[in-house]
Amino acid sequence: LVDSNSAYVAEKLEQAGVTVTRHHAVGDDLELLVEVFQCISRRADVVVVTGGLGPTTDDLTAEAAARAAGVACVLNPQALAVVEAFFKRRKRMMTESNKKQAMLPEGSKMLDNPIGTAAGFQLTINDCVFFFAPGVPPEMRRMLKNEIIPRIAELQGDDRPLCLIKTISTFGMTESAAGEKVAQLETEFPGIKLGIRAHFPEIHIKLYAYGEDDQAIRKRLESSEAWVMAQIGHRVLSTQGRSLSVVTGDLLREQSATLAIAESCTGGLIAHQITENAGSSDYFLFSGVTYSNAAKVDVLGVSPETLKRCGAVHEETAQEMAAGAKRVSGATFSLATTGIAGPSGGSDDKPVGTVCIGLATPDKLVGRRYFFPFGKRRMNKTVFAATALDLLRRELLGFTIERIQFQGKTQSGNT
Amino acid sequence: LVDSNSAYVAEKLEQAGVTVTRHHAVGDDLELLVEVFQCISRRADVVVVTGGLGPTTDDLTAEAAARAAGVACVLNPQALAVVEAFFKRRKRMMTESNKKQAMLPEGSKMLDNPIGTAAGFQLTINDCVFFFAPGVPPEMRRMLKNEIIPRIAELQGDDRPLCLIKTISTFGMTESAAGEKVAQLETEFPGIKLGIRAHFPEIHIKLYAYGEDDQAIRKRLESSEAWVMAQIGHRVLSTQGRSLSVVTGDLLREQSATLAIAESCTGGLIAHQITENAGSSDYFLFSGVTYSNAAKVDVLGVSPETLKRCGAVHEETAQEMAAGAKRVSGATFSLATTGIAGPSGGSDDKPVGTVCIGLATPDKLVGRRYFFPFGKRRMNKTVFAATALDLLRRELLGFTIERIQFQGKTQSGNT
Repeated sequence: LVDSNSAYVAEKLEQAGVTVTRHHAVGDDLELLVEVFQCISRRADVVVVTGGLGPTTDDLTAEAAARAAGVACVLNPQALAVVEAFFKRRKRMMTESNKKQAMLPEGSKMLDNPIGTAAGFQLTINDCVFFFAPGVPPEMRRMLKNEIIPRIAELQGDDRPLCLIKTISTFGMTESAAGEKVAQLETEFPGIKLGIRAHFPEIHIKLYAYGEDDQAIRKRLESSEAWVMAQIGHRVLSTQGRSLSVVTGDLLREQSATLAIAESCTGGLIAHQITENAGSSDYFLFSGVTYSNAAKVDVLGVSPETLKRCGAVHEETAQEMAAGAKRVSGATFSLATTGIAGPSGGSDDKPVGTVCIGLATPDKLVGRRYFFPFGKRRMNKTVFAATALDLLRRELLGFTIERIQFQGKTQSGNT
Repeated sequence: LVDSNSAYVAEKLEQAGVTVTRHHAVGDDLELLVEVFQCISRRADVVVVTGGLGPTTDDLTAEAAARAAGVACVLNPQALAVVEAFFKRRKRMMTESNKKQAMLPEGSKMLDNPIGTAAGFQLTINDCVFFFAPGVPPEMRRMLKNEIIPRIAELQGDDRPLCLIKTISTFGMTESAAGEKVAQLETEFPGIKLGIRAHFPEIHIKLYAYGEDDQAIRKRLESSEAWVMAQIGHRVLSTQGRSLSVVTGDLLREQSATLAIAESCTGGLIAHQITENAGSSDYFLFSGVTYSNAAKVDVLGVSPETLKRCGAVHEETAQEMAAGAKRVSGATFSLATTGIAGPSGGSDDKPVGTVCIGLATPDKLVGRRYFFPFGKRRMNKTVFAATALDLLRRELLGFTIERIQFQGKTQSGNT
């Protein structure tokens, strides 16, 4: 199964000043688990283990940990209380198999799990401190934060190295273009490590500040962040890890503005992204996902003459769609997308990857054409949606709207 | 970073009759990589390594493999041809750093990569055969299929154990309810292993058939599949790994029917899922994402009186939305969703997790109310969208529409 826990744990441990060197994934095999625990115990100071604490017979973690430590599993009254409390909250009967979840290795310390049935535990094997947490992501995350990281901080004592991480998310540059813009960072700011990560369609610039003095590294991180912001300018979306739709939504809310959308090629994706945000009903009114030309005409009032003259994928059509969505809903702003996500439908003139975006503001109506060379339908929908939202974001911030550069050729709008 | 390659590689290797015991993730640290390669080489027969074959200085895999094998990296003319061909196709200049990608451990055999710059390679370390592939998912997947799996089959020779895997995807049951329904499978069909996996909101039932005789295990797998189908009935979505939106879209296409949607709480997600499918314009006409009440009235023609009397979240409102989307677009079928995705907006009467779904067919209009106990906005949107699509799917298949059971309480519709 795809595992998202280990990336999460690694990031949180790095932030807590722990150098994460390896991650192991092991099947539900008792002997193998025992061997791996013993092997790791001989080279690491601290280990975080997730999963295998459930009630079924293939949940072997506690048993394997006990064997690796040379002890037995015994009923832990605190862990039993965790299981009992869970079933009491849910007003459900506890089963015999859930009692197994309270059997922890002798000498281990229970780690509280106030939101699930599986208590965690701490156990020392060959001088290496193991922390065992459930695999269910919300339970694991909570236990890591409230139980494990504080105990690791105690183990680190005054020697605790500090690491602060800042993530600057950007849109509209390739990974290599972003890299070039900030290439001098490590030279300009000794002690800051740079990481560039693609989170399609965004590029994230990560700054890692290491040191002993909290004040000093905080200051160094702030200076380097300001330097990066100056290099990247309006392509910065957020320094707080907020997504493009959250950033754009918050700008709409701040300006007491509302939004309508008309989506052809993005097929509802922009509306879906906007409505992922709790409270988006403050600013989001309507999206007309007009996949058919008839719907463009009937719902949005696009002129059949424009469709005939320019085709569905055209700046003029996108502008009429945006104007229609704005008119129908009474929104302050509107966005429209019409393009060719592929795999079919492309032509020499308008290849797969072409999108026209319309933006209506209180005082203007603009249309832009872009081309993206990704080829894949899913990637095209994603980058089309982001390009539309980013156009609105920059408009709301008062930036002059200009072209977006991605790998491959870029076309500018003709309006 | 979240790694999706290892789950993919593990599944493909299992299908090729390889028992996958462990997965390691290691940072970009040369000494550590060498140590890990040597350690693994002493206990495995075959290893698949992904990533670290790029042109930059933190791509250390080839160098580490060479050191672990006690050889040097040398220019491999075939690998150089791969890099050169890539740049020729893209009509771009090859950089000096890309030449590094053609430096492979002495004695290794190149594995072709016709879609990227990084050639893979095969290298034996301590009698263990390592296959090195790039980390870029499409390149890795292609190399695994065309280069690595065939070579592993050769190594297996006539002793090659066979494993066939069948995945049966379902919707509308909890993991434990699904488990109970098929609990007798391993007893009924010796030699078949059962796996139940939650892929929210779907539950996947996996059947693993092991054996030596291809014909025999194929037959056994087919019998067990038929048995599972009989147990699960109309809750089976697909035995080919197709998603709910693909299955539903294909049914619409087969019946030459078209679809319109009216989405409030799902916020465009259903339209987005439908339009992920290439060719969805064959059957999908329009979705009105009517987040505001005004849009429900103005675009879909919902009666203000109904909204006043019943509220936005109600079976009657959902029915009027569905009727409106169908009327506006001229579609054969329409679906509507209105509910409370949370985190706010719930009441005692209509708690977060409540959704009303409207379905209009050529000859009827139905409304249903459901409650899901997930609490999270994203999960609610996802399960609301799936519930709506599944209602349509079952209608298209001619099943009587009934209630959906999930963990927690379930409410039936009042129409």
